[in-house]
Amino acid sequence: MSLARQIAAFAVEARPTEAAYGVMAQSLYDWMVCGMAGASEPVAAIMRAQALADGGSAQAVMFGGGHVPARAAALANGTISHALDYDDTHFAHIGHLSVGILPAAIACARKDGAGLLDAACIGFEVATRVGLWVGRGHYQAGFHQTATAGAFGATAAVARLRGLDAEQAAHALGLATTRAAGLKSQFGTMGKPMNAGLAAECGVICADLAARGFLSSPEALDGPQGFGPTHAGEAQAIAWDGLGDIWKMTEVSHKLHACCHGLHAMIEALSALETSPERVERVEITTHPRWLSVCNQPAPDTGLGAKFSYAHVAGMVLHGWNTADIDSFSDACAQDATLVAFRDKVRVVAHDSLAETEARVRLDLTDGTQLSGQHDLMAAQDTDQKWQALRRKGAALLGEREAQLWEAVNPEGVPDLEALSELMQMESV
Amino acid sequence: MSLARQIAAFAVEARPTEAAYGVMAQSLYDWMVCGMAGASEPVAAIMRAQALADGGSAQAVMFGGGHVPARAAALANGTISHALDYDDTHFAHIGHLSVGILPAAIACARKDGAGLLDAACIGFEVATRVGLWVGRGHYQAGFHQTATAGAFGATAAVARLRGLDAEQAAHALGLATTRAAGLKSQFGTMGKPMNAGLAAECGVICADLAARGFLSSPEALDGPQGFGPTHAGEAQAIAWDGLGDIWKMTEVSHKLHACCHGLHAMIEALSALETSPERVERVEITTHPRWLSVCNQPAPDTGLGAKFSYAHVAGMVLHGWNTADIDSFSDACAQDATLVAFRDKVRVVAHDSLAETEARVRLDLTDGTQLSGQHDLMAAQDTDQKWQALRRKGAALLGEREAQLWEAVNPEGVPDLEALSELMQMESV
Repeated sequence: MSLARQIAAFAVEARPTEAAYGVMAQSLYDWMVCGMAGASEPVAAIMRAQALADGGSAQAVMFGGGHVPARAAALANGTISHALDYDDTHFAHIGHLSVGILPAAIACARKDGAGLLDAACIGFEVATRVGLWVGRGHYQAGFHQTATAGAFGATAAVARLRGLDAEQAAHALGLATTRAAGLKSQFGTMGKPMNAGLAAECGVICADLAARGFLSSPEALDGPQGFGPTHAGEAQAIAWDGLGDIWKMTEVSHKLHACCHGLHAMIEALSALETSPERVERVEITTHPRWLSVCNQPAPDTGLGAKFSYAHVAGMVLHGWNTADIDSFSDACAQDATLVAFRDKVRVVAHDSLAETEARVRLDLTDGTQLSGQHDLMAAQDTDQKWQALRRKGAALLGEREAQLWEAVNPEGVPDLEALSELMQMESV
Repeated sequence: MSLARQIAAFAVEARPTEAAYGVMAQSLYDWMVCGMAGASEPVAAIMRAQALADGGSAQAVMFGGGHVPARAAALANGTISHALDYDDTHFAHIGHLSVGILPAAIACARKDGAGLLDAACIGFEVATRVGLWVGRGHYQAGFHQTATAGAFGATAAVARLRGLDAEQAAHALGLATTRAAGLKSQFGTMGKPMNAGLAAECGVICADLAARGFLSSPEALDGPQGFGPTHAGEAQAIAWDGLGDIWKMTEVSHKLHACCHGLHAMIEALSALETSPERVERVEITTHPRWLSVCNQPAPDTGLGAKFSYAHVAGMVLHGWNTADIDSFSDACAQDATLVAFRDKVRVVAHDSLAETEARVRLDLTDGTQLSGQHDLMAAQDTDQKWQALRRKGAALLGEREAQLWEAVNPEGVPDLEALSELMQMESV
């Protein structure tokens, strides 16, 4: 049976586990935070203006306001919610899950909160596994899993929400093979968040056309000259092990700090140590070697540069700056005399015995004592602690609206889609 | 200067030659024929229903009726006009030009017929050259130039029509790099015509977003991990020689017979010979070897099979069947006793001294005389003869509506866009 047909059967039948629902509540909350905060970005205004000029049936809402067809909302909201690049990451999938899939699912969920959760879990799982299947080779060649694998996830999610049968879902996925696209060479431009929008848009249009009887080639994912073979796919068969039983999407990681993901394990490890910055004589950070070329700027002088600096961010943490708040990473922060002076105390070393998601820290205090800690972003985290951290981020980005969002997401039950819709439509702050 | 910036400068400034306008009139006429005839195909009904369900601003019309936003019309009309696979081909570009570009251009041309011609020529030229630039390697890897190179052509065309400046056009093309997609593995399904629709849709949305200030990476066509390098592009620098002076799009070829393109040179060569089928004892067809595995079915028993059979179609031509008419290729035709018997008289041989677009034919008559002929589809053709052939095709597909279409296209002047719009909206016959 072709891969698209296997995925289609899964999309139609799968029942997510409690663990999957639990992670999905976090991703839904976190995605809403990113979308609401992203609604004031310049690219958001462009996407809304274009969608509103086209107009059409009021099927769904956009972040920042406006009712448009589901397809248009998916494109706009995927782009808007990825604009800050502060959304969730699945390291094995090599990409962002929520921004490609939730915009499609929420645009098609109407008032069915339980259906949204099912479809979103399924979409996340399909995107994760397609991302694993095409593998690192796909990413290294220049493709952006967020967009490409995301398109299949979004298609699976909408297929479930629209009630497609397995045959229709296979044609929807087959059609997605010829539409899925997205390049890393857009990084650093508005084209990067648009890649997430492309995935979401692809899901809506392919599933909707299949529901109307559109026939494609369900062999065109893994078959000859299919999406995988044409897009530097590694065809990792292991990616499909346990489909339906094991939910790999539960390994999604939420970004709790408004800086490069390579710094996050260090931030968590330092945050757990109790001391005051005046007592610190020396800081040693041990990290995986891959990050040295990514986020080890020794002397940044802009807020953007600070987001990629172990030395600067270590000082921010120890001096009590709120690293969850985007506004913390300002030029003023990068030039803050205390933080600039503190950088000299920080030493960064690399060791490949660490996982990429891991960091070790050691503080030498002026009184001769040592404090040390370790953190791995993949380590199981207490759910309450995780929610506290997510809500700190939410409060930093949304202010008073955070409480409404928390209530609307309703993590212990089913999300209130009308309340979420109202929050999405709020004018950006 | 990056390739996208060079193309952008061309899109903004270029002035097509008289020869380009002349070919464009033929392609516009031929595309309208294919779209109007394709409007009754099943995929056309699906595309219209989806676009009408989404609704929106009445910016453009669809084949078969319905006003929708330009983006939606481009997607629908690209798909509908390619549904019969009877539209123009550019052999060097390795794809179909009109179906990817004209749906975008006509949806954005409003009432400016002269502007439509300029933009369409420019779009054709860009698509042709991008197709040459990515080359045969791109096609052999599994990509469909109609969709991929077509997307850049459509973007250039809409950029011209919307009056973008060179900087905006470069960002539109840069954005198209991350959206352009389309696989050959959809051939034989509705996904194939959809590939043309994807190109046209890409053009409208990328140019419109760039007009609103969207910033992408104009380096992402030929730069590191750009569209070319990631999509098995050959980077044929020669593709860009003489851009602005030489109009390679003028080499586009129009399909005058409703069967595999590999049979067309034979049909033309046989049609020029004057005899009656009863006098023919033996037919010898010489063709390029590549066609033997494509269209040399010795004994087809369906209309579809007949479209890929030298032996059967040779008999059709000599017995006076109208090979321009899609309805000629019926199961009844494939099983016609006279034609089936005639196949035994036909012998097909291959020789690689012929061009792929060339055929030689020889008839041995019962009285011992021989008739022979040759045709190359690339040979310069008298304009009047070409128009006569195109209009025979138009009449075969459209019946009485052909005369209205001829008047609306107005080959010696500027097309009447209101009249074309009315023809597009007619219910399919």
